[in-house]
Amino acid sequence: MSTGGHVLLALDLTGTFAFALNGALTALRMARLDIVGVVTLGMITALGGGIIRDVLLDSLPPATFGDWRYLAVAAVGGLIAFTFGRRLELLNTPINILDAAGLSLFAVTGANKALQLGLGPAQAVILGAITGVGGGTLRDVLVRQVPSVLSSGLYAIPALIGATATVAVTELHVYGLATAVGAAALCFAVRMVGVHFDIDAPMPRSAGDPDDG
Amino acid sequence: MSTGGHVLLALDLTGTFAFALNGALTALRMARLDIVGVVTLGMITALGGGIIRDVLLDSLPPATFGDWRYLAVAAVGGLIAFTFGRRLELLNTPINILDAAGLSLFAVTGANKALQLGLGPAQAVILGAITGVGGGTLRDVLVRQVPSVLSSGLYAIPALIGATATVAVTELHVYGLATAVGAAALCFAVRMVGVHFDIDAPMPRSAGDPDDG
Amino acid sequence: MSTGGHVLLALDLTGTFAFALNGALTALRMARLDIVGVVTLGMITALGGGIIRDVLLDSLPPATFGDWRYLAVAAVGGLIAFTFGRRLELLNTPINILDAAGLSLFAVTGANKALQLGLGPAQAVILGAITGVGGGTLRDVLVRQVPSVLSSGLYAIPALIGATATVAVTELHVYGLATAVGAAALCFAVRMVGVHFDIDAPMPRSAGDPDDG
Repeated sequence: MSTGGHVLLALDLTGTFAFALNGALTALRMARLDIVGVVTLGMITALGGGIIRDVLLDSLPPATFGDWRYLAVAAVGGLIAFTFGRRLELLNTPINILDAAGLSLFAVTGANKALQLGLGPAQAVILGAITGVGGGTLRDVLVRQVPSVLSSGLYAIPALIGATATVAVTELHVYGLATAVGAAALCFAVRMVGVHFDIDAPMPRSAGDPDDG
Repeated sequence: MSTGGHVLLALDLTGTFAFALNGALTALRMARLDIVGVVTLGMITALGGGIIRDVLLDSLPPATFGDWRYLAVAAVGGLIAFTFGRRLELLNTPINILDAAGLSLFAVTGANKALQLGLGPAQAVILGAITGVGGGTLRDVLVRQVPSVLSSGLYAIPALIGATATVAVTELHVYGLATAVGAAALCFAVRMVGVHFDIDAPMPRSAGDPDDG
Repeated sequence: MSTGGHVLLALDLTGTFAFALNGALTALRMARLDIVGVVTLGMITALGGGIIRDVLLDSLPPATFGDWRYLAVAAVGGLIAFTFGRRLELLNTPINILDAAGLSLFAVTGANKALQLGLGPAQAVILGAITGVGGGTLRDVLVRQVPSVLSSGLYAIPALIGATATVAVTELHVYGLATAVGAAALCFAVRMVGVHFDIDAPMPRSAGDPDDG
C-alpha cells in the first residue's frame, strides 16, 4: 500500500471511531433505545458517509465490507459509548467535538479517495463534503431531527473548506500525513468556532417567522 | 453528442433548476435555516433524483459529478431562491409549479436514460418515475414531512404517465425535443390538475379514522 | 439457473410479497394516504432491502429492475392489502408476522447473494442483515417513525442470526431449500419471541429518563 493509502486508512479509521462514539452518545439521549439500537446508530453514523462515498465513486463493495477493521472499529466505538456514556450523555461538548472530528477526517479522506479514483478537483471537493456530512445526516434522519447540514450554517462550510484544502495540497504534490491532518484540523477549527459562538451563515430576512405554518 | 443526448441534457438541466428553486423555497418556509441550509436543500432536491437514477443504472460517478453544469445550475437556483424568495415564500403556487416542472422533466429524462442504457420498457417507466419523485422525496424526508409521493395521489401517477409517454415515443422512433417536451407537458398537466382540484386517488374506506393511533 | 438460484429467487419473491403486504398495511393506518400512497409504501418496503443489497454488491441494475416478477409481486401485495386490509388494519399481529417473515427471508437471501458474489463470511452476515432491515427502515423513515432496527432490540439480532445460519450452512455445503428455510425459520422464531414477550436487549442505565429533552 502506498503512503497515501496508509494515511487514508488511518484517518478513515479515526473518523469512523469518532462518529461511532458520537452516534451512540446521540442514541443514548433518546428514550427506549437499548444496546442494539445504541450500537446500530453508532455504526450507521460511523459507516454511512464512507458507504455513500463508495457508492457514488462506484468503488463497490464499500471499503466497509472489504476491510473488517471498519466494522470492528465502529462496533467497538458504539460499545464504549454504551458502557461509559452514561455520565457523558447530558454533556453537549463531547458529542460536538466527536462530530466535528468525524466531519473533518471524512471530508479529507473522501476528497482524497475521489482524487485517487480520477475525479476532477471540484467534484472531489463536493464528494469530500458529502462523505463528511453523510453519516451525521443519516443519524439525524433516523432519530427524526432536522439534519445539522441544513440547520447549522457552519457545518457544510467547514467540510467544504477541509475538502478544498485536501485537493489543494494534493494538486501541489505535498499530500501526506502532516498536510492531511492539517486540512482536517482546519475543518475542525472552523466547525468548533461555529459551535462555540453559535455562528450561523446569513439568515433570510423572513426568519423571524417562527414556524413553517 | 447525439441529438438525443443534447435533448436529455437540456431537459435535465431545466429540471435541475426548477427543483433547486423549489427545494430552496421549501427551506425558506422553515425557521432557523440560513443561506447554507437553504442552498443545500435546493441542491439536494435538484440533484437527488438524478443521483438515485445513476446509482440504480450503475452510471457512476453520477452525471452530477462528471459535468459541472449540474452543480452550477443547482447552486445558482438555490441562491436565486434565497435572494428573491422572500416575497414568494408564503405562496404555494410557485412552489407547486416548480415541483411539477422538476417532476415532469426528470420523469422524461430518467426514462430516456434508462432506455439508452439498455433497460426494458417497464423498467424504464419505473426508473423514470423514481428519478422524478426522488429529489422531492429526499427533500421531504430531510424537512420531516410525509413525502408527496405517499400523501398525494396525483404525484406518482403523472410521473408514471410522463415516463410511459417517453418510452412510447422512443419505441416509435420519434423521440426528440418536441416529443420529449410533449411527454413532460403531459405529466405536468396531470400533476397541476391534481394540485388545482386537490384530487386524490381512491382512499381506503377507513380513512375517516383521523390518525394512526 | 442453479438450484441455489431457484431457492434464492423463490425465497426472495416470498419475502417481497410479505413486506409488500406489511408496508401497505402500515400505510393504511396512516390518515390521508390513498391507494397510490398505500401501494407505493408497500412497494418501497418490499423492494427497498433488495435494492440496497444490490447497490452495495454492485449488482446493478438491481434484480428488481431486471426481473419483472419482483415489481409484479410487490404491486399485487400492495393492492391486496389495500383491498382487504380494512379489517386487519387495527390488528398488530398480521403486521408483525409479515414484517418478521420479510425480515427472515431477506436476511437469508441477502447473505446468500453476498456469498455468491464473492464476499467473505463476516461481510455476508452484515449484508444479509442490511437486506433484512433495509425495506422496513425505509418504510419507517418515510412514515416518520423511529426505525424498528433502532427501537426494538430483537430486530437486528434475529436478522444477524438468520444471516449467520445461512453463511454456516453454505460453508458446510448443505445450502438448499430445506436449510435456507430453516435459517429463515430460526430468524422468524427469535423475532416472534421478541415481539410476543416484548423483550429488549439491555437498556442503558439512564433509560428512566423519559425523553430526549
